[in-house]
Amino acid sequence: MPDCAPPIFSDQFRNDLFALFKWRRDVRRFRRDPLRADTRDELIATANLAPSVGLSEPWRFVVVDDPVRRSAIRDCFEACNADALRAQDESRASLYARLKLAGLDEAPCQLAVFADRGTQKGHGLGRATMPETVEYSAVLAIHTLWLAARARGIGLGWVSILDPQRVAEILEVPADWTFVAYLCLGYPSEESDVPALVREGWETRDAVTLLHR
Amino acid sequence: MPDCAPPIFSDQFRNDLFALFKWRRDVRRFRRDPLRADTRDELIATANLAPSVGLSEPWRFVVVDDPVRRSAIRDCFEACNADALRAQDESRASLYARLKLAGLDEAPCQLAVFADRGTQKGHGLGRATMPETVEYSAVLAIHTLWLAARARGIGLGWVSILDPQRVAEILEVPADWTFVAYLCLGYPSEESDVPALVREGWETRDAVTLLHR
Repeated sequence: MPDCAPPIFSDQFRNDLFALFKWRRDVRRFRRDPLRADTRDELIATANLAPSVGLSEPWRFVVVDDPVRRSAIRDCFEACNADALRAQDESRASLYARLKLAGLDEAPCQLAVFADRGTQKGHGLGRATMPETVEYSAVLAIHTLWLAARARGIGLGWVSILDPQRVAEILEVPADWTFVAYLCLGYPSEESDVPALVREGWETRDAVTLLHR
Repeated sequence: MPDCAPPIFSDQFRNDLFALFKWRRDVRRFRRDPLRADTRDELIATANLAPSVGLSEPWRFVVVDDPVRRSAIRDCFEACNADALRAQDESRASLYARLKLAGLDEAPCQLAVFADRGTQKGHGLGRATMPETVEYSAVLAIHTLWLAARARGIGLGWVSILDPQRVAEILEVPADWTFVAYLCLGYPSEESDVPALVREGWETRDAVTLLHR
């Protein structure tokens, strides 16, 4: 039976939730301590509570443990990152080169996340005019996992400097899965309430843009 | 100065966070009570803490208050939804027709969210091979707003049954903004820990899919 009496969240909870948003970080520096497999699976099960278009639950999690595949992913990152460095303005290239943009060497747990464009689940509801909501659903699951991890002191880093086609080949996933993100998980080796890209002088935080119509 | 001492989240907080994920709903039935503008703006400011590719913060929030524009959005939804109904299998069409898929008539607060593909902020970091991470960043902001709203007892409904090009025309936004979502916000007129699409027999919740590679 559905429960129709929602929890009443306290001011304390709302303050802690704000702190969670504030302290969630894109983590690129990890300790080598392992992440327990049952912890990983609990986080993924929590991610499954995320919203999805038409309740299609199109997120697909791939646990990447095979050292050969991990090495191929790292090679893919290195190649894409070298291309990105070459594309930087001369004035920013040396700063770019100093950034640590992924924890692929150290992160004990690595997950690739795909969106299943072929799923019949949800019967197409809500995605006829916006098929990209399938990938957006996977993004919502990733963010749910990210927050649940941070609430346990576990950091997550989202790696997007990858060739999606190559990642799909390395991981041998079905052809109609779209690559969404490669996630590094583990215990952070540094903590801060300020994003690394701010601390390193790459970018600043700005106030939100609001239009009225 | 960055703060390097992260909050230690309690078991109570983690339990409440799980309840928040469980009770977050895609709300389509709203009470008519207004949502205060300062509450709306606080939620949007919280959304601004979301992760974004290269710290590009590419989310753009449009507050839609003009009755003429709201009416045009509703017309767009009605047209897209009529198309979606016609595309349903015969066996599911009558069920589809009974679903209430948006709270556009009642929701006191309505926001359109776009992703700014033209932003220079972030200097392109992280999006050369995956430009869609710009839209994904906006999705992360939406989910942050959604959870912050729910923690205050405020419901959010994500409307995707819209023609993105038409929405951009109605709201007269810059040409390089991608439409991501139209959000209805307000106080829910019903509460449940079970998604409406489950209660209405449209779809079920499934266990998560996990591959090992």
